Amino acid sequence: MQKTVKDYIRTIPGFPHEGILFRDVTTLFADPQGFRLCIDQLVAPHRARRIDRVAGLEARGFILGGAVAYRLATGFVPIRKKGKLPGRTIAQPYKLEYGEAVIEIHDDALQPGEKVLLVDDLLATGGTAEAGIRLIERLGAEVVGCAFIVDLPDLGGRRRLEAMGLEVHALCAFEGL
Amino acid sequence: MQKTVKDYIRTIPGFPHEGILFRDVTTLFADPQGFRLCIDQLVAPHRARRIDRVAGLEARGFILGGAVAYRLATGFVPIRKKGKLPGRTIAQPYKLEYGEAVIEIHDDALQPGEKVLLVDDLLATGGTAEAGIRLIERLGAEVVGCAFIVDLPDLGGRRRLEAMGLEVHALCAFEGL
Repeated sequence: MQKTVKDYIRTIPGFPHEGILFRDVTTLFADPQGFRLCIDQLVAPHRARRIDRVAGLEARGFILGGAVAYRLATGFVPIRKKGKLPGRTIAQPYKLEYGEAVIEIHDDALQPGEKVLLVDDLLATGGTAEAGIRLIERLGAEVVGCAFIVDLPDLGGRRRLEAMGLEVHALCAFEGL
Repeated sequence: MQKTVKDYIRTIPGFPHEGILFRDVTTLFADPQGFRLCIDQLVAPHRARRIDRVAGLEARGFILGGAVAYRLATGFVPIRKKGKLPGRTIAQPYKLEYGEAVIEIHDDALQPGEKVLLVDDLLATGGTAEAGIRLIERLGAEVVGCAFIVDLPDLGGRRRLEAMGLEVHALCAFEGL
């Protein structure tokens, strides 16, 4: 039987801390058939529409975002952790399990009205994705879709993004935490 | 006249600290024509040879590496900063301007005899690239080429990698520091 994207993902218990089942997509990325399948499926819902830029969240979203942008024949815009981008940026804080983090985008990375596809490997609570979306929208651009490999539906990220009016696609889901 | 890859790169003085002319490839990545040109030129010397995996150095090497792996129809292996990979890893320290850093690779990411193309955005002293090469070689795989967008020849990275017997390609060079 044809392997699915989910079949290539490895689960590692106890990373980054005890009690977590970490969904490790590096085994998917490393496999030539798996990686191709993953990129083609991420791109599929968006091939017929206008996408001006693909935005990816540091760091696994960079691996996907570069390939998706190439496949869609468009440009790639990185959304990075604080202090990593060399030019003038705008910053967006978001909540973590403990504390807060900040992500940034170059303030000239997107133009008003541009249509952006946001890409990351995993949708959990949706906190990072929401912060990324806010950065894109603060530059006047429009998020026309959010593409993930894995959805963890019990953590509510999809509901959160859909409640913002966004179109969300994920290639597979893992129940539980 | 046709723009070259170098034409899309922005220079930002004073990042990450005073006296540095930072070569910012995000303006290249963001441009649809620029990004495509860059990926196609990185891939060009390697299209006719056997490449089993593309390895990318965190974090800008991920953007390039994903797209290059997709273009070459192969898999992608991330080389990451210490503590970021969830599975069992091997680690390689390398020198920074001040102090030392460590990068890691999953110990099952490559098999003995596999042929690997190493990708990163910029070749300066070659310290990070050399550490990445050592990780790949410690797993028994072979680095068949190193692909960079920018070479800073005055920092000696190309000489250092070529002295290791490696094939080095860069799409453009900037003189001086």
